[in-house]
Amino acid sequence: MNRAAIRFILGWILNVEAAMMLLPIVVAVLYGESEGWTFVAAAACCLAIGIPCVVGGLRGNAFHSREGLVIVALSWLVLSIMGAVPFVLSGAIPSPVDALFETVSGFTTTGASILTEVESLPRCILFWRSFTHWIGGMGVLVFILSIVPMSGGSHMHLMKAESPGPSVSKLTPKVQSTAKILYEIYLVLTVVQVVLLLLGKMPLFDALTTTFGTAGTGGFGIKNDSMASYSPYLQNVTTVFMILFGINFNAYFLILMKRAKQLRYAEEVWGYLAIIGVSIAAIAWNIRHLYGTLEETLRHAAFQVATIITTTGYSTTDFDQWPEFSRTILVILMFIGACAGSTGGGLKVSRVLILCKTIRQEFHYFLHPREVRVLRMEGRPLEGDTVRSVNVYLVTYVLMFTASVLLVSLDNKDLITTFTAVATTFNNVGPGLAGVGPLQNFSHFSDFSKIIMTFDMLAGRLELFPVLLIFFPRTWKRFS
Amino acid sequence: MNRAAIRFILGWILNVEAAMMLLPIVVAVLYGESEGWTFVAAAACCLAIGIPCVVGGLRGNAFHSREGLVIVALSWLVLSIMGAVPFVLSGAIPSPVDALFETVSGFTTTGASILTEVESLPRCILFWRSFTHWIGGMGVLVFILSIVPMSGGSHMHLMKAESPGPSVSKLTPKVQSTAKILYEIYLVLTVVQVVLLLLGKMPLFDALTTTFGTAGTGGFGIKNDSMASYSPYLQNVTTVFMILFGINFNAYFLILMKRAKQLRYAEEVWGYLAIIGVSIAAIAWNIRHLYGTLEETLRHAAFQVATIITTTGYSTTDFDQWPEFSRTILVILMFIGACAGSTGGGLKVSRVLILCKTIRQEFHYFLHPREVRVLRMEGRPLEGDTVRSVNVYLVTYVLMFTASVLLVSLDNKDLITTFTAVATTFNNVGPGLAGVGPLQNFSHFSDFSKIIMTFDMLAGRLELFPVLLIFFPRTWKRFS
Repeated sequence: MNRAAIRFILGWILNVEAAMMLLPIVVAVLYGESEGWTFVAAAACCLAIGIPCVVGGLRGNAFHSREGLVIVALSWLVLSIMGAVPFVLSGAIPSPVDALFETVSGFTTTGASILTEVESLPRCILFWRSFTHWIGGMGVLVFILSIVPMSGGSHMHLMKAESPGPSVSKLTPKVQSTAKILYEIYLVLTVVQVVLLLLGKMPLFDALTTTFGTAGTGGFGIKNDSMASYSPYLQNVTTVFMILFGINFNAYFLILMKRAKQLRYAEEVWGYLAIIGVSIAAIAWNIRHLYGTLEETLRHAAFQVATIITTTGYSTTDFDQWPEFSRTILVILMFIGACAGSTGGGLKVSRVLILCKTIRQEFHYFLHPREVRVLRMEGRPLEGDTVRSVNVYLVTYVLMFTASVLLVSLDNKDLITTFTAVATTFNNVGPGLAGVGPLQNFSHFSDFSKIIMTFDMLAGRLELFPVLLIFFPRTWKRFS
Repeated sequence: MNRAAIRFILGWILNVEAAMMLLPIVVAVLYGESEGWTFVAAAACCLAIGIPCVVGGLRGNAFHSREGLVIVALSWLVLSIMGAVPFVLSGAIPSPVDALFETVSGFTTTGASILTEVESLPRCILFWRSFTHWIGGMGVLVFILSIVPMSGGSHMHLMKAESPGPSVSKLTPKVQSTAKILYEIYLVLTVVQVVLLLLGKMPLFDALTTTFGTAGTGGFGIKNDSMASYSPYLQNVTTVFMILFGINFNAYFLILMKRAKQLRYAEEVWGYLAIIGVSIAAIAWNIRHLYGTLEETLRHAAFQVATIITTTGYSTTDFDQWPEFSRTILVILMFIGACAGSTGGGLKVSRVLILCKTIRQEFHYFLHPREVRVLRMEGRPLEGDTVRSVNVYLVTYVLMFTASVLLVSLDNKDLITTFTAVATTFNNVGPGLAGVGPLQNFSHFSDFSKIIMTFDMLAGRLELFPVLLIFFPRTWKRFS
């Protein structure tokens, strides 16, 4: 275990976090809010620990896949703990367990909240809350990768560990430039959405925070009714951008590089859009009697499908009141999630596609036992290792999910609340059904359950293994 | 596709079913019930179709794995359709969809019922209903295998397709003698249970039907309150025998052959007993305030754990009223199921163990990427093919389960009812929670949902692939 590398990168994480806290400080100054000092204090703390860690740089030796996973898990933990400090200091969320839940929910772009009422909170707190989505969406390590020089294959190991999905395509030969390009695409899409929301007469503060939540597929709102009180135009813009941020960013890269023809091989993107289309149609048919006009029915169906499959978690209507068929579709979409290489969570469409292909292969095997057939994805043969690890991913996912439901069931809530609370945090969605429906929140759970769900949010965002590995004693052995 | 073999075996299925209908006819004669004629009519029907099919024997050519799977799926369908005839003719269950649901529930040893009231039914109907569990438990093809001579590897293909679990161990070099030994063990255990129940002063009719339900891990009761009104002794005997029938029958074979020392490698059996022990302890702790004495608490906890993990489905108390933690444990047990090679359903303990081992292997792979490590089970290395097919099994299982929940959700019941109704039928358990709790039944579902769940029961019992294959057009191609 290369402890020097861990210290160096965690130091950078803290410094970058301090820099990011400048934004809420600016907001506090603009609105004349006294809570600004809590961010000054937190940032000072970050720098006091962070600067000594990075002084001197990283000595020579590169690190391996195992270190990459551990670094990512610890980075997110450190990031969340320091990010929670302003919530506690300002008194917005006095309980440390609650504050950590809220911050992890922010950075992991879950959007599940323990707050019963948000509109009375100071602007700088609301801004920080939404900004954590934007930081967490693309991944803070990807950001650090694009600015900090590191040796050898270290970049790739970090990138692999933090990026969602079964495999990372290198867009360019250098990982560092890939990270830069991803952040540029992210930034451009963010700016476009802000402009479009401003054109729809949304106030600047609302436009920024809404966009942060959309871009990171997070879902923290600044209104108690989420997006319900905004105009249909603003809701539709948000629907479109949620879907756009759920697409594999490689697709945008191909368009940028004028290689859009290759998009026809982008099975995952087409699969993702097909699932969205079918779900909107099925739900619109199922809820046709609930709303006055076809426009309204389609708008609500499309918004809710987009918000759940991309694991954002905004809402324009209380979908917990919808008929069971629509609610079941939404629960299934929670698990499917968005594309790999997007900012969304869940199992990821590409994993679901690969899993379906293994079933087809098994049938083929039954019918033609002696014929070997190679699985293909996006026009290329799938490596056996990828297929194996996707299968193991599902197994681990099911097991962790089951264990979490069992532990949270000790709170003695009804099964729908327990099941969807775990589903929505594990998949980084935000709202669930019943006791955690879009108009409810997570404040009524015990601290024990909140800790379990905090863990689930981190595990879901970092794709299980990094978070599990830090509990594995052998990970910490120096030589093995 | 070897159509001659299909016809020959389906013919045998019908003849054997006719022979089995002699028993309810005897019951009808003893109790002087006029409904006996419906069994005479059904048996005559079976023979009229069955005898012409088997005359002349099976000409020469053996068949392959594909034919094995298709034959098993069709056999169970034919068996169920003819088995439903007496229910419809006697007026006990007038609707054909309901009668098929009930019969499939019987043969697949599920025990889910659409009857709201059973105590007023004629004795011969009740007897047949419970007897289907006994026939389905060990598998009707296994029975036919033990009496009908067939060529080459045909036996093995049938046995593999019908037996539950990831792989079939040949107990003896000849499949036919393996089948005979399995049926002998089954018969002996059945007789012992009947005797023990009679010693507890249970009437003979009750003892026979209760034992049929226990042996097949079925669960149809002859009382509206299932086993609640029987004495603690009778409940405890049933608990023990449910657990015994959920054990891999290979274990009994080893004991019979005086090779009991090998049992220490029987990871699955030990895992199964450990899960039962831990679950009873956890539930007893969770429900300690609900019952008067420790004896009563433990008795109810043990009975309910045994009934659910073995997928039997009797009940001694309304566990739907238990706290959420206990209910969640029971739902998890539904999915785990009993041992492979027993009469129980579910995923099977051995599959769960293999899946857990693949996770451990993945961790090892993260920590030591260049080291190859072979998975071992029951002291022997696991073949890559077995691991792959267990993984694909889980994927197919999750997908079929999800699709079923979605389709049944069209009935607009609450999610717990929908979810546990599918879970309990797919895993061949019987009762679920809420609308399908132990004191409820399945009569309130639409015909569409009943057909979906009938399909799920068959798919669960035959382990997915045989039932799916018959819908696959390429299965039916003559040369491919």
